[in-house]
Amino acid sequence: MTKVQKTLSELAGLVGGKVVGDGGIEIARVTSIEEAGPGDITFLAHPRYRSYLANCKASAIIVGTGVAIPSVAGTGRGYLQVSHAYLAFAKVLQIFNPPPAYSGGVSPHASIDPTAMVEEGVVVFPFVYVGKGVRVKRKTVLFPGVFLGDGVEVGEDCVLHPQVTVREGCRLGNRVILHAGVVIGADGFGYAGEGRERIKIPQVGIVEIEDEVEIGANTTVDRATLGRTIIRRGTKIDNLVQIAHNVVVGENAIIAAQAGIAGSTRIGNEVVLAGQVGVVNHIEIGDRARIGPQSGIPRSVPPGAVLSGGVAAAPHQEWLKVMTLLPRLPKLWNAVRQLERKIPHVGPRSRKGVKKHARR
Amino acid sequence: MTKVQKTLSELAGLVGGKVVGDGGIEIARVTSIEEAGPGDITFLAHPRYRSYLANCKASAIIVGTGVAIPSVAGTGRGYLQVSHAYLAFAKVLQIFNPPPAYSGGVSPHASIDPTAMVEEGVVVFPFVYVGKGVRVKRKTVLFPGVFLGDGVEVGEDCVLHPQVTVREGCRLGNRVILHAGVVIGADGFGYAGEGRERIKIPQVGIVEIEDEVEIGANTTVDRATLGRTIIRRGTKIDNLVQIAHNVVVGENAIIAAQAGIAGSTRIGNEVVLAGQVGVVNHIEIGDRARIGPQSGIPRSVPPGAVLSGGVAAAPHQEWLKVMTLLPRLPKLWNAVRQLERKIPHVGPRSRKGVKKHARR
Amino acid sequence: MTKVQKTLSELAGLVGGKVVGDGGIEIARVTSIEEAGPGDITFLAHPRYRSYLANCKASAIIVGTGVAIPSVAGTGRGYLQVSHAYLAFAKVLQIFNPPPAYSGGVSPHASIDPTAMVEEGVVVFPFVYVGKGVRVKRKTVLFPGVFLGDGVEVGEDCVLHPQVTVREGCRLGNRVILHAGVVIGADGFGYAGEGRERIKIPQVGIVEIEDEVEIGANTTVDRATLGRTIIRRGTKIDNLVQIAHNVVVGENAIIAAQAGIAGSTRIGNEVVLAGQVGVVNHIEIGDRARIGPQSGIPRSVPPGAVLSGGVAAAPHQEWLKVMTLLPRLPKLWNAVRQLERKIPHVGPRSRKGVKKHARR
Repeated sequence: MTKVQKTLSELAGLVGGKVVGDGGIEIARVTSIEEAGPGDITFLAHPRYRSYLANCKASAIIVGTGVAIPSVAGTGRGYLQVSHAYLAFAKVLQIFNPPPAYSGGVSPHASIDPTAMVEEGVVVFPFVYVGKGVRVKRKTVLFPGVFLGDGVEVGEDCVLHPQVTVREGCRLGNRVILHAGVVIGADGFGYAGEGRERIKIPQVGIVEIEDEVEIGANTTVDRATLGRTIIRRGTKIDNLVQIAHNVVVGENAIIAAQAGIAGSTRIGNEVVLAGQVGVVNHIEIGDRARIGPQSGIPRSVPPGAVLSGGVAAAPHQEWLKVMTLLPRLPKLWNAVRQLERKIPHVGPRSRKGVKKHARR
Repeated sequence: MTKVQKTLSELAGLVGGKVVGDGGIEIARVTSIEEAGPGDITFLAHPRYRSYLANCKASAIIVGTGVAIPSVAGTGRGYLQVSHAYLAFAKVLQIFNPPPAYSGGVSPHASIDPTAMVEEGVVVFPFVYVGKGVRVKRKTVLFPGVFLGDGVEVGEDCVLHPQVTVREGCRLGNRVILHAGVVIGADGFGYAGEGRERIKIPQVGIVEIEDEVEIGANTTVDRATLGRTIIRRGTKIDNLVQIAHNVVVGENAIIAAQAGIAGSTRIGNEVVLAGQVGVVNHIEIGDRARIGPQSGIPRSVPPGAVLSGGVAAAPHQEWLKVMTLLPRLPKLWNAVRQLERKIPHVGPRSRKGVKKHARR
Repeated sequence: MTKVQKTLSELAGLVGGKVVGDGGIEIARVTSIEEAGPGDITFLAHPRYRSYLANCKASAIIVGTGVAIPSVAGTGRGYLQVSHAYLAFAKVLQIFNPPPAYSGGVSPHASIDPTAMVEEGVVVFPFVYVGKGVRVKRKTVLFPGVFLGDGVEVGEDCVLHPQVTVREGCRLGNRVILHAGVVIGADGFGYAGEGRERIKIPQVGIVEIEDEVEIGANTTVDRATLGRTIIRRGTKIDNLVQIAHNVVVGENAIIAAQAGIAGSTRIGNEVVLAGQVGVVNHIEIGDRARIGPQSGIPRSVPPGAVLSGGVAAAPHQEWLKVMTLLPRLPKLWNAVRQLERKIPHVGPRSRKGVKKHARR
């Protein structure tokens, strides 16, 4: 990595925001607020952490506009005041940590079919396999163990980390990042018939991944039965996620670790699925819906909905009792309705009780 | 892939069913009902999609016997009427998409121990590692990055996709398909002792996978502590599934993505586990039981049982209230019982209320 | 593997415990109680399995001190009585199954950067990639397909199974075992901004794994945004687990398959997380806490807590009713409170009913 050095004023110019204190302070590194020392810039994630400022040894601190900045007189410290501290932090981090430039060219220890087209500036590490008719565009990096099946297309400036598999015919856009162990285009899980009569439904579709998609380690995206499984532009997927055949994930969605989406389901734009969420097949999650951790989604969700379904753990002995009673909830419900009927002095308010809602 | 072309009558001969319309129509491709055009055959998955028939441009359509077929006079279109439309669709798809024939032989860039026996017609891609005493039978395909540990046996006509690991001593039957990144025979998760005294229990058993098993991408099947972890004939396992040591999965079972089965549990024949199901250790799931998505299975399940345990997500704010009250279910239950005792005019029906069921 | 043979007395000397019967019995193998035959030693996992002893053909049996040992006169069988049968079984298994000794040296078909330091006795299989400035200490084994990014450090006596990825700068201690497909140091899942404005936060920290850690197949441990993701000494992690960026897992913890831990969370020493547990970000699980299967952990947990949150599956039709009523729990609660207010003869006991607990 090349060593980057910037003054606080230069950083303000690059990411926006106002300098408070000495704009000439030299910055060489970004660190956490606890670890920061001279020459470092750090950031205050939330106004409630303001107390950290007193002991912080950073040369500069990124703060949001809502934070009251202590006097800088004689401290030798500067502040970069911005509207979104976290966003500015991300940009500063990018400035000090540019993506590594790989320059190895094509390793003689890779296996590249003579019919494959590997463009200029592509880096191919040892033990990469590139099949027939594959096309890999400019400046893409293929780490050791990457497999590109016949007819695969990979766009510009992509990074495919070690052991990534992209099966035959699948297509990646530009600036796609696939982390180690990702499998794109394995057969969808489809069988016809029941019991002993089951036969495999050939999975002859592909996976198409658009620009700026990033997919986490060991995540799997299955090829379509017919047609395409699609991950649209800008979507970010975490580790160990399962995307089944014929799923379509919209633009700029966020899918956290270990979530699973069953076949043919459509996920809208900017949807957020938290960790371990499970979504059944053949439904639709509307744009910008947000689903909490471990939730099960058994039916379609309208745009913008905010849903939760995760069950918080409780002390084990108490939980055992709860779990014994949960299946008896219908009986409890009926008992309460019966009690309501029996009480002679039922006023008008009681009518709004259980019975009304039972009709929902 | 070789180009396949069939008349509608030929297809009827191959998959069964009755032709309605011109049996001489030439078919060259199978597509979805929305994308179908001339020369294509498609299928009507369910009678309720019958409205799609009007605009469909396919040359032929597979329909179930329950579907009223529109008049074919002058349309140039034919129908293939069958008892199970989906099964016939799968068979037709197989006819038009025969498995690719690999013919590369054994790559000089593979590493094969001289004591290994690789039979005729086996295809070994570059960067495959085959250990001591391994046996690979006829026509099996080993994609790049496949690892076969010492003493592994692989049957005929298997396909091991890229980066598959089969650890020492494990055995695969015939026509087994392992998708990319599958790990067979990693050590089971076993330690004796508590806290700081923990020692590793050597996992010296194996994994045995019978004929026609298919296992999805990045799924893991651990080797037994002693003896064998077994996946019996015809079982299909999806992506990212965990099968622990000494588990036995019966014949023709279906295990969907991200399900997990803990150690020594026995799964019966034709059992269906939906996505993200968790099964505890040392229990038995009876034949043909079906378990719904995200369910937890804490105890044995009788044959044929149909169980669910997944919790459907609800609007976040309402769910927070539900989650606050859920641990208080025992208190609610007691309150209702107390109310029942206090009400003077308790008739015979009320006796059937909560108290009775509390005794269950 | 070298063939090991021991007398029962020798085993007693090695693992502790008292011989009952003939100490000169020769033992050559460890098996399960059902499969055991002459020359085998097995163990009785629990006193309730005592009935197995009658038909068992093992030459010797490990039993706990609580088990009444049948008369050995004329049986030719011996017993090894110990305080912890399972622990003794593990030790005996280790004696008969010493870790395999690999002696291949460094394969000429590996790709090792000239700046890497590979110490004496290290075994490097074909198709291993070792980057710039990597250091691998004595007697470590790198199986085919292992990737060590630039600057990685690996301690002594480690085993990295096939297809393991350790990304740049990450550090492993001594005697670490990484099973096939493990990914250490993939980028943490971090983006700043919302919707279309999302930008990637560079993940410039590392992962540090201390001595005697074992990590299961296809598990992923992400690198820190800044600083370190840490897995402390002696911790054992099962397959398909997700450990997010900046997580710290304490010493001697046990994390079962498919559990997931979100970013910056701290897991204490000797914590046990069962399978499919999900832990949210930025919380702390206290030392020796134990969390049951499938539990969701939305907030910090005190040391020693024993929590459960998994929902047991029930018959599908009954479960549908329960799931319909669960979101109405707040209404049921209110109805019961209203009933309590209406009943005229409310005695002092009823005050302890629902209302009191609603105030919690």
